[in-house]
Order: sequence, then C-alpha cells, then structure tokens
Amino acid sequence: MQFTQGFHRAVQQRPQQTATLCNDRRRSYAELKDRVARLAAGLCQLGVRDTNRVAMLALNSDHYLEYYLAVPWAGAQLVPLNFRWSVEEIGYALNDCEAVALFVDDTFAPQADALLDACTYVRILIYCGDGKCPEGMVAMEDLIAQNEPMEDASLSNSPLGEEVLGVFYTGGTTGKSKGVLLSHRAVTNSALAFIAEGANVFSSNSVGLHIAPMFHLADAMQTTALILSGGTHVMLPVFRPDAVLDAIQRHHVTDTLLVPAMLQALVDCPALAAHDVSSVRNVLYGASPASESLLDRAMKALPNASFYQGYGMTEVAAVGCILPAHEHLAEGRAMGRLRSAGHAAQQVMVRIVDDQDHEKARGEIGEIVIRGPSLMDGYLNQPEATATALKNGWMHTGDLAYMDDEGFVYIVDRAKDMIVSGGENVYCAEVENAVASHPAVASCAVIGVPDEQLGERVHAVIVLKPGTTLDQAALNAHCRTHIAGYKCPRSLELCDALPMSGAGKVLKTELRKPYWSNLKRQVN
Amino acid sequence: MQFTQGFHRAVQQRPQQTATLCNDRRRSYAELKDRVARLAAGLCQLGVRDTNRVAMLALNSDHYLEYYLAVPWAGAQLVPLNFRWSVEEIGYALNDCEAVALFVDDTFAPQADALLDACTYVRILIYCGDGKCPEGMVAMEDLIAQNEPMEDASLSNSPLGEEVLGVFYTGGTTGKSKGVLLSHRAVTNSALAFIAEGANVFSSNSVGLHIAPMFHLADAMQTTALILSGGTHVMLPVFRPDAVLDAIQRHHVTDTLLVPAMLQALVDCPALAAHDVSSVRNVLYGASPASESLLDRAMKALPNASFYQGYGMTEVAAVGCILPAHEHLAEGRAMGRLRSAGHAAQQVMVRIVDDQDHEKARGEIGEIVIRGPSLMDGYLNQPEATATALKNGWMHTGDLAYMDDEGFVYIVDRAKDMIVSGGENVYCAEVENAVASHPAVASCAVIGVPDEQLGERVHAVIVLKPGTTLDQAALNAHCRTHIAGYKCPRSLELCDALPMSGAGKVLKTELRKPYWSNLKRQVN
Repeated sequence: MQFTQGFHRAVQQRPQQTATLCNDRRRSYAELKDRVARLAAGLCQLGVRDTNRVAMLALNSDHYLEYYLAVPWAGAQLVPLNFRWSVEEIGYALNDCEAVALFVDDTFAPQADALLDACTYVRILIYCGDGKCPEGMVAMEDLIAQNEPMEDASLSNSPLGEEVLGVFYTGGTTGKSKGVLLSHRAVTNSALAFIAEGANVFSSNSVGLHIAPMFHLADAMQTTALILSGGTHVMLPVFRPDAVLDAIQRHHVTDTLLVPAMLQALVDCPALAAHDVSSVRNVLYGASPASESLLDRAMKALPNASFYQGYGMTEVAAVGCILPAHEHLAEGRAMGRLRSAGHAAQQVMVRIVDDQDHEKARGEIGEIVIRGPSLMDGYLNQPEATATALKNGWMHTGDLAYMDDEGFVYIVDRAKDMIVSGGENVYCAEVENAVASHPAVASCAVIGVPDEQLGERVHAVIVLKPGTTLDQAALNAHCRTHIAGYKCPRSLELCDALPMSGAGKVLKTELRKPYWSNLKRQVN
Repeated sequence: MQFTQGFHRAVQQRPQQTATLCNDRRRSYAELKDRVARLAAGLCQLGVRDTNRVAMLALNSDHYLEYYLAVPWAGAQLVPLNFRWSVEEIGYALNDCEAVALFVDDTFAPQADALLDACTYVRILIYCGDGKCPEGMVAMEDLIAQNEPMEDASLSNSPLGEEVLGVFYTGGTTGKSKGVLLSHRAVTNSALAFIAEGANVFSSNSVGLHIAPMFHLADAMQTTALILSGGTHVMLPVFRPDAVLDAIQRHHVTDTLLVPAMLQALVDCPALAAHDVSSVRNVLYGASPASESLLDRAMKALPNASFYQGYGMTEVAAVGCILPAHEHLAEGRAMGRLRSAGHAAQQVMVRIVDDQDHEKARGEIGEIVIRGPSLMDGYLNQPEATATALKNGWMHTGDLAYMDDEGFVYIVDRAKDMIVSGGENVYCAEVENAVASHPAVASCAVIGVPDEQLGERVHAVIVLKPGTTLDQAALNAHCRTHIAGYKCPRSLELCDALPMSGAGKVLKTELRKPYWSNLKRQVN
C-alpha cells in the first residue's frame, strides 16, 4: 500500500488523538494532516516534482515525521541521512541520488554551506529548526503557513505501492555507501508484519518513543507502524538516559525501539529508581543480541515490558527475523534462544543456503537469505551489486548462520567482514582504508571485538612503518577526517606482522580469537 | 506475498504443531506439508497445468485445507464452489472459469454425473471423501500415496503475489454469478490486516474452528490467517450448535468466525450450559450487525471472548471494515457503534462518495467505496462490470451509508437491491426471475425483511393471475428448481397490485416500510 495510506486512516478514525509530542508541542492527527498537506504543497511550489529526491539531515523531532509524510504526499522520494557521517560521506550520498532539496535543523544548519559545496544537485535548503531561518534557506514553517493544503499525490498511484518511497543509505563493503531503493509496499509490509507479530505492539493506544535516530530504517519501522496503527509519537532529539526516563514518565510511553547499548545505559542510569516507567509494555531491540544479564536487569527495571529482538537490514526494509517476547522467558532461555536472532517474521521467508543457493540441513552453517514482499528494489546506480545481492530473488545477507529445528537462526559470522557497533553497521574495508592512509601505518586489519556497551567495538591491528609511532588519539584524529566517528577504531593493537593465509589474505579469525574465546559468536 | 508462503513459515517454525483436527484425524504441520506437496504432484501428473482452474464442491474438512494449499502449490488456481447452489448454477460457474478438474466429497459425489453433463471443460473428478472412490473418479488419497512431494511451484513467482490465486464466485445482480479474480496478494494482505487488528486474534497458539462453510471467502480469511500465524484448524462439516459446543470443549477452540444467525443458534442451544466454552477468546462475526440483546447473551455464554464484526465483500478479499472488540463494550454501545459496520480495517481505505466519486461530508449518505492492496483484479469475463465496479481505482460496493466523525460506517441501504440472509448475499433480481417464471405469477417483487435468525429473510410480494392460487410450499418447490435454497423466498404476501413509481419502477421502499418501521436499517 502507499506509505501515507495508514496515515489517512488514522486521521479518519481519530482526528483528535495526539499524533506528535515533541518538546512542549502537542499536535493532533488532524493538525498533523493539515501541516503535512501544506508542507507538501510548499515543496511543489518550490519546484520539487514527481520522483525528485528530498533529503533530511536532522536530529529527531516532530518535524522529522512531517518530512516523512510530506515528501511522498508531494509525490517525491525520501532520503533520510545519517547525521553521524562526515561532510564527504553525506556529499557522496546527495550526489549519488541527485537530491534536489535538503532539510536541515538547528544542529546541522551550520554545515549547510560545506554541504552545498560538496554536492551538485541540491538547489533548495529548507530550515526545519526552531530558531531564526538562516540566510539563503526557506523556512519550513513559512512553507506551511503560505500554502494551501494539497491533495495527497501518492494516492493517484495504485494502492499496491510499487513506487519508490525513498533511498535509504547503508554502509558499503567497498568503502562507498549504497542507496537502497525501498518501495512504499516494502516499508509498509514490513511494519505491518511487526504489528502482527505481537499482541498490542504498536496499537492505536500506543505511545511510541523515538529514541534511536529517525533517519535509521529500524526507527523508520517504528514510525511506519505507529502511523499504521494511529498511535502517538514522542520524539527525543538525542539519546540521553535521563531524558528517556523523563519522557517515559511524563508521556506514559508504552512502546519503544532501541539497541542493546541504549538499554544498557538505561538500566545503568542512577535516575532510574526515581522514575515511574510502569507504562512501558513493549521494548524492541535489534542490531545485536542482548546478554542474559542485561535482559534480567532490563526486565526488572521495566517490569511490565515484553521484549522483542529484531534481526534484519535495510535491504529487507529492516525486519527479517524476530525473537518473540515469550522466548525471552524461562523456557526460551533454557533452549538457548537468547543467543539466536529469532525466527522469520510474518511475511518473511528465511533460509540458510550454500553458495549454490541450495538449502542447508538444519544445524549446518550457511548464508542467511531472505525473501518476501518487503525486499528492496535494488541499489541505486549499482546494477551489479543489486544482481549479486538479489540472486535468484532472495536477498543474500552475507551473514553466516545455522537454523535449528524450530526455525531459529543463530548467526555465527558476518561474511561481509562487517562489525555491528552500537546498532550501526561498520564495514572493515572502509575503516582499513582510513587507517591505512595514515603515514605511520605499514599494514592493518580491522576487526570487531566484544564490548559491553556497543555489542561490538571497532578495533584496529596495525603494523607500523619503521621508526614511527601511533597512539589512539592520533589515529582517531586522522580517521575522523575521512569517516564518521562511530566507524573510527575505539582501540588499537600494534604488532610486528599480520597473520597471513597462503593466498596472502589476512587471517582475521586468528586476530579475533583472543577476544572471542568464550564464544557467543563462533569464530570460523 | 504468495498464499503458501506463510504455510512454509509455519512448517519451518513449528513442524510438530497440530495443523488440522477433523473427525478423529490429527495432522501436524510437517505431515500436512508432505501431503500437500504429494497432492500437488498428483494434480500435475493428471495434467493440471499452470493457471488451470481446479474446483471444489465439499463440506468442511481437513481435505478442504489440503485443497486450498495443493492447488496453488501446483501452480494452478482455486475455485471453491458454493454447495448450496443448484446444479445449473454450479455448471454455469464451472463453464465460466473453464475449470479442468473438480474435487467432490461424499456428500456431493452423487451429483457428479449431473455436474459433468452440465459443464464443458471438467475432465478430472477427484474424490476426497472417506468412503470408497466411485467409478470414474481419482481418489485424492491415491494421488497422495502414489506421488513424490514436489517443490512449491508458486514460489518460482515473485514474492509479491500478483498472480491470481483463484476465482471466487459471488451472486450477480443480473441473475448470473460473477467470478471474482483474487490475487495471492489480495487474500494474504486481507488476512494479515485481520491479524493485525486485534491482540491475539489468529496467533500461533490459536485453535480456530471452521463453522462457516470453507468455500466462502469469509471463512477463507480465517483459513489464511491461521496459516499465516501457524495456528490449528478444527473443521466441522456442517453447522450444528451441539457439534460446535462439543468441538469447542474437546479441542479448546480459541477463535472462530460465524454469522449472527449461527451465534443466535449457539446461545439458544440447550446443551450450552453443559459445555465448557471458556477457551473461546475471539469471535468474528459478519454479514450483518448483531443485536444488542444477542451480543449480551453471547458475551454471557462465552465469557472470555472478544467480539469483532467484519464488513466487506468478496471483491475486497472479504475485509473492508472491522468493528473492534472494545466498541462492543459499554462506551461503544452508548455511542451506538453496535449499529455500525465498523471502521476501515488495516490496509483498507474506506470513503463515502457521491455519484461523481467525490467524498461526502461526515453524516451524509453516499456509496461506500473501498481501496487498498486487497482489491480484486476484476470479474472473470466481465470487463464492463469490472470497469464499473473499479471505477477510479476504488471498489464501488453499491451499499449506501454515512460515516461519523471517527470513521465508523453506518449502512442505510443496499443500492444493489440485495438481501443479506444468513450470511449469504441474495440478489432480488435473480429471485424475482425465478418467482416470475411460475405460471400463476402475474408480477412480483422480492425484498428483505427483518428476521431474528437470518438477519434478513427473503420475502416475495406477488400479484397472481386471475383465477390462480399459490402457497409457500408450491412457490418454494418451483423456485428450488432454478435457484439455491437459501435464495428462495421464506415468506410470501399476495396483493392486488404493486406500488409503482411514475417511471414504472416498483417502489420497494413502500413494500419494505411495514417491516422496517423500527429501523435499524434506514428506509430511503
């Protein structure tokens, strides 16, 4: 279906219900619809046309939801940008998708000039902050105030939603990020599968808290699911444990989605005991499994909450597997299910296959492949990468895993040499390029090592050139000029030579071994 | 998605769970998959090819579910037939869709010869009864025993499910029934919307009871939803209140779908008190609203059950509106919601429009139109009727209604001159044709009148030719040779002349007035 279809239903059925709560702003569904229809008209008036791409670089706010709705409403396509990226990385994405307009908030408005220099096609800057509109930008509030509401252009398409909703950038194995083309159909199907998974997850009386960044597709699933069910959105600009606790208590938050590192910070927060968090009934976490001890503490801290783990990737519109709430309890734990990534979600087919795409027997390790109506259309401008990823109609995740007799998937390694750190994918090749460009580095390898906060931490093993030195601070300062902060090595280790295979490949398994000896993640 | 996709998921995740319970047969999901894959191979071996149509004429049983799965598995299309129809009506449908094969059970095997005479294309008769296979038929059990399991042919298509799943016949306003072409996508989306609607409706631990006939698309939604969630199916061949109560108690039934007339019979059944029905947690009813007194008694009889009303039609894959469980309770009742047909279900857009398809203001009467991914592809062999029904991309239901400020839809009349009796649509024109063909009838009009059991009852108003007589028994005997029993008038009224409009049309509003004076249904 069309992305906005569920929004129309919510407006029809509960026009007076609170749609957004952000800072001290509260807006009903009827008000939100009016703003969205005016903002869409404003975009059209600025010359944004069908299938033009409109990017957003902003922290979480109610304006982010308005952007998500107004762009397809105008018939255009979304490009929510990772705000942790460097100007160079963002510029690459904006040029790759030929975005014609860019929204920036107060945090990112100061970067606007540098961004404009870095990109070719953007000709409209829209300011969605709360202060004074900078010179050379159009204020979002002016667009809303000065335009009459327009009809939803996306509804003139068929209700199947086969059109592209947006380009969602994901890290690239070869150093450049890839623009994942997701249809309206893919995103809405995935969110609906999410809703169907659990009793009362993202229902019409849900108050959902956007803790994770709204540019990320995982949070976009929460956004979509709340739109489909007509629940209330609460936005927090950045993750701060005490602010999260305040928001939960103040707005009676029922549902949220986060990564284990955030859950850890929440249960460690001294302010926890002083807050009433009894309203929370569903916690969805993803990117990496949570440890049993973390879950124990989280369940104690949020006594009324059910916990769901999600496994997926942008290419499948976020949701592939789900570990249901009841598997987090005694019986599921005894079966070792907490170490799994769950089993296929509604509308999703998951298989473990060999390199010929033949299904492996249960218990045998192979690649996870995923199929269903929420698959991407492909990677923008990358037909070869698309063909490889979608070979035989299945998304090849690159992750190695085995499946047990009840369909639960246990990830044993990432074939793509990728680290999942604090919920973000970090491709080792990209970090290695940045590290290797330091003048002191002779050779290097980047691996993920266990980290209580981040799940995995980016770790560099480096051979120095003779007579040079390098410490963590210097390495970080260097890398930060090339790649986003979350991709930079958090720790480093110097050695005389990297262990090599006969074919001259670095044996990362050898490098990882000392860190992963009590395996949750199997070294192979 | 493909219709069988959810079935593969259920087999992967709970192979040992009970899939079907019928008579004393219990089969697990793994067993069911094996039987379905063999039966599909058997169909192919008989020469059934891609997009061939395979019909079924049978009471409810586990074999009906095997049919629903095996036919798409073989790459063919379903044609579940209304067993209440006359041989003439069934023959019409079989010829219209050019079905090549027909399944019959013990009840309908004796009609097989007459059916073969009435149709042109059927060349394979498959016996799915429990007795001895009649001469000239192939036994379904032999097909299962004698063929190796084949791969699911439907999975070679894209996961979007745009192919036709089957032809579902619905009554026709002009006397001939129409074959509604529904895609895999339409049927699965509709079932998923159903699952997403209510907490715990059709979940993996559901035990669903097929009370309504499985040929009917409403029950097919229950079938699909249970497949998607991997629940257990319990089949009863025909509706008998005591057998329903026995099945509920014996199999701990949790979910079921029925029409108000059946609910009435259940709560009236003397055996109710002696049965433990505490397992029932969800009751979905449809076709007509239930009275407050019936719901009161039903809620008392089934104390743990939530009640959901569905409104829809075959053309939208059954589900258009849903009246949620909580609207059946005190607040919803006080708002008069029990008289509504609910509001738009997940993935469904519902509007009230004028004859130019412009949306009417809230509270104003217009036609209900429906849009979403569960819309039919069209009517088989009827391009004009398709174009009319799907004008501007919306399904024009022909039902007149108004919408309140929270999206609830109140039906005031059926524009198509249709009666909904005991859950079946009866088109007045078709009944009038049958009545008028009686030699004693000079002119006639058929209307629906209120009926405690059936919701509406088919009622004939007749002007006799001079010197003739006609009673209910004689009229019924005559009509039964032309149309299904449920379409025949249950009561008749003789008069000297029918009230006519200036343009010579029968004023049915005048005829209905005496029966509908305390309106639930508005006379207009």
